[in-house]
Amino acid sequence: MTTIDHLDTLPDGRSVEDARVEAARAYDLDRRHVFHSWSAQAEISPMGITASAGSYVWDGDGRRLLDFSSMLVNTNIGHQHPRVIAAIQRQAAKLCTVAPQYANDVRSEAARLIAERTPGDLDKIFFTNGGADANEHAVRMARLHTGRRKVLTRYRSYHGGTDTAINLTGDPRRWPNDHGDSGVVHFFGPFLYRSRFHAETEEQECARALDHLDEVIRMEGPSTIAAIVLETIPGTAGIMIPPPGYLRGVRELCDRYGIVYIADEVMAGFGRSGTWFSVDLVGVTPDLLTFAKGVNSGYVPLGGVAISAAIAATFDHRPYPGGLTYSGHPLATAAAVATITAMADEDVVGNASRIGAEVIGPGLAELADRHPSVGEVRGCGVFWALELVRDRTTREPLAPYGASSAAMNDVVAACRSGGLLPFANVNRIHVVPPCTVTAEEVREGLTVLDAALTVGDAHLPG
Amino acid sequence: MTTIDHLDTLPDGRSVEDARVEAARAYDLDRRHVFHSWSAQAEISPMGITASAGSYVWDGDGRRLLDFSSMLVNTNIGHQHPRVIAAIQRQAAKLCTVAPQYANDVRSEAARLIAERTPGDLDKIFFTNGGADANEHAVRMARLHTGRRKVLTRYRSYHGGTDTAINLTGDPRRWPNDHGDSGVVHFFGPFLYRSRFHAETEEQECARALDHLDEVIRMEGPSTIAAIVLETIPGTAGIMIPPPGYLRGVRELCDRYGIVYIADEVMAGFGRSGTWFSVDLVGVTPDLLTFAKGVNSGYVPLGGVAISAAIAATFDHRPYPGGLTYSGHPLATAAAVATITAMADEDVVGNASRIGAEVIGPGLAELADRHPSVGEVRGCGVFWALELVRDRTTREPLAPYGASSAAMNDVVAACRSGGLLPFANVNRIHVVPPCTVTAEEVREGLTVLDAALTVGDAHLPG
Repeated sequence: MTTIDHLDTLPDGRSVEDARVEAARAYDLDRRHVFHSWSAQAEISPMGITASAGSYVWDGDGRRLLDFSSMLVNTNIGHQHPRVIAAIQRQAAKLCTVAPQYANDVRSEAARLIAERTPGDLDKIFFTNGGADANEHAVRMARLHTGRRKVLTRYRSYHGGTDTAINLTGDPRRWPNDHGDSGVVHFFGPFLYRSRFHAETEEQECARALDHLDEVIRMEGPSTIAAIVLETIPGTAGIMIPPPGYLRGVRELCDRYGIVYIADEVMAGFGRSGTWFSVDLVGVTPDLLTFAKGVNSGYVPLGGVAISAAIAATFDHRPYPGGLTYSGHPLATAAAVATITAMADEDVVGNASRIGAEVIGPGLAELADRHPSVGEVRGCGVFWALELVRDRTTREPLAPYGASSAAMNDVVAACRSGGLLPFANVNRIHVVPPCTVTAEEVREGLTVLDAALTVGDAHLPG
Repeated sequence: MTTIDHLDTLPDGRSVEDARVEAARAYDLDRRHVFHSWSAQAEISPMGITASAGSYVWDGDGRRLLDFSSMLVNTNIGHQHPRVIAAIQRQAAKLCTVAPQYANDVRSEAARLIAERTPGDLDKIFFTNGGADANEHAVRMARLHTGRRKVLTRYRSYHGGTDTAINLTGDPRRWPNDHGDSGVVHFFGPFLYRSRFHAETEEQECARALDHLDEVIRMEGPSTIAAIVLETIPGTAGIMIPPPGYLRGVRELCDRYGIVYIADEVMAGFGRSGTWFSVDLVGVTPDLLTFAKGVNSGYVPLGGVAISAAIAATFDHRPYPGGLTYSGHPLATAAAVATITAMADEDVVGNASRIGAEVIGPGLAELADRHPSVGEVRGCGVFWALELVRDRTTREPLAPYGASSAAMNDVVAACRSGGLLPFANVNRIHVVPPCTVTAEEVREGLTVLDAALTVGDAHLPG
């Protein structure tokens, strides 16, 4: 039933025993010297990862796990794609690092390939190291372009870990970083399953959410608002696909009030939703679009901002007051060139779309039918969430907002013991495998998830 | 006299003609699609870089230039060091990316090698993507550790490009990003050549600068101040070596008032000053030390914070509210392991120290003797500044604060036409070659600089 594999060798040819020795030493040194993200350092026991290939990773015991998390939803092209590896190796031999003030072939080519795919006139690319600084710089551009300071973002969102980015964020990780002076105002976005607008249909939710946003803008003062920042599909916060018309409505509000529309596609972009960018799903063009993760699957740290002609022109004769040593890093952009080219050649985006529509969606719906702990299934492409609840009628989450629970911990443990690496957040399990995942792999994962949800069901009252 | 080299092939074996074609296309695409750091986009003509090796880079015409800038003062081990290249290629084949919540061998090993070199009990390493986010996280740790909000930094400093980091910064790049609400207060640091304390000796400057800092702390309120952030040797702002006793005095003030001492060694660390860390020059241990650049010479984007035992303990049972997808990235940390190991094996730090004391220092002093445009020479290791002036008596800079001038542009152009890539900032030329630079290469560069300073002299009045 499960997918536990005890092989003799890892994909790179090392013996399992060698990998175990390596992992034991790595764990020991980790506990002495590595300070981990978002963690109480004395309360974690990091699982080792020693190898990866395609949709799989190998843990410190040499055990193979199906990666339904894509690490942090970044390995869109799968683990260790041979063409991206080869491109990194070639670029390393040629030229690893160049300062941002120079012109360089792979930086230029990556910018061209990205600009070719971003919508509308978003044809200038500012490269950063990741998604957080991409959002930092996008907000800065919007503030300088408009001469306004305030930024609107939604509750239930994630925009990154640096100070501006975490204050854009609408999840509990903002709280310890929020001193009330960030200039960010949060509003409610559409989320029919937990509607804040007393809506019963997608149409109602969409209309009322737009009316709410309009009212927030009018009450805050349009002339004070530089930008609205929105994950096109909120990711870690719950993969809430916006109802039809919502993003077009946001675009119209931004146009009406002279506000810059920043689409955060750090997680939603580069194939995740079965399109190059999730704004393509609704044909909306933002003024700025931020990316990272899938642009080169995180093989080398890279992020960036795609900039409209109008905003770029603001900085034609006025210096843009921002930058970084590794902007447009050759190794990172070479990985982006190889990733985008391979994704195009191998129809990786099409695969994500088809596998979502034909295998993941129907498979999760079928699980939801049988498991009372599943309150809702939503998503598209390889970007799906299972909303787990204690009660389908009250929709009480299986873990309270911003926390975990024994039930959720047990569901996650059951996934892992079944050979599946899930992405869990609060009361949700996200199904976010690489865009290259096969139907067979999805079915393998759904089988493990089926057993894990049975564990979840057992926690329900009555 | 100069070092112009027109070779038939580049170090990676390509013909010069092939490199020219590549550079022409790169330039064209750059102008259409690349948005550059710190620039008015329509007013730049980025020079191409197509190859590099050791202390040299090759421009878009296949012309070799001696790199006295180390790009942005990051290629401490030189360009394309074969052991670092090989390590990146091996790691790429093995495992490119792992999410931060897991344990991984190269991440652990890099943390060990760094912790082994950082002073005192700074033995836990939080990895970031670069120097800016390292400083962001260091400030966050200090704020949460102390429960205080305000941060003190010095004028004439640079701490990075993201919002918190650029507001820590004490140079004009802060201005367009400063809304007066960052919680940063700037003070004057020691800088005898342009003393703000009416001092005539290093001893006076040191004592008065410490007295000034003490007074700023007492006036701001010690109970409001989380941290003092100081580049151990301010880099881009002018390479002002602190007078003996200054940093020890800062340490004592921090201890007296319960303030966290953050040493920014993004530029000053990993060999630049002829020591592993510049705090080693004076035997002072900060509470947090930030690094980037030299840790792996920027071959892969990487930065981090080394954390004292006391501050790490704050987050033993309380989650640290910060993180990033690429924290402890395997490719970046593999490059760090190889860089640190090769630097140790090849005595790269010792070379930087000796070449500074025996060749660069005496050579620049000799140039200063002959060129009236040189107001002061200062530095150590491979970390030197020439302060260029219109008048040695008034010390009027050759370009006004935060701007450029025809004289400075001509000096830089003369360096480039002579085959030397300099690092220029306002009225200064910095001599910051790789730590691996040879005596012969330094002499080659000094010859070009000699001619360029003659061009500078010609701009002096009278």
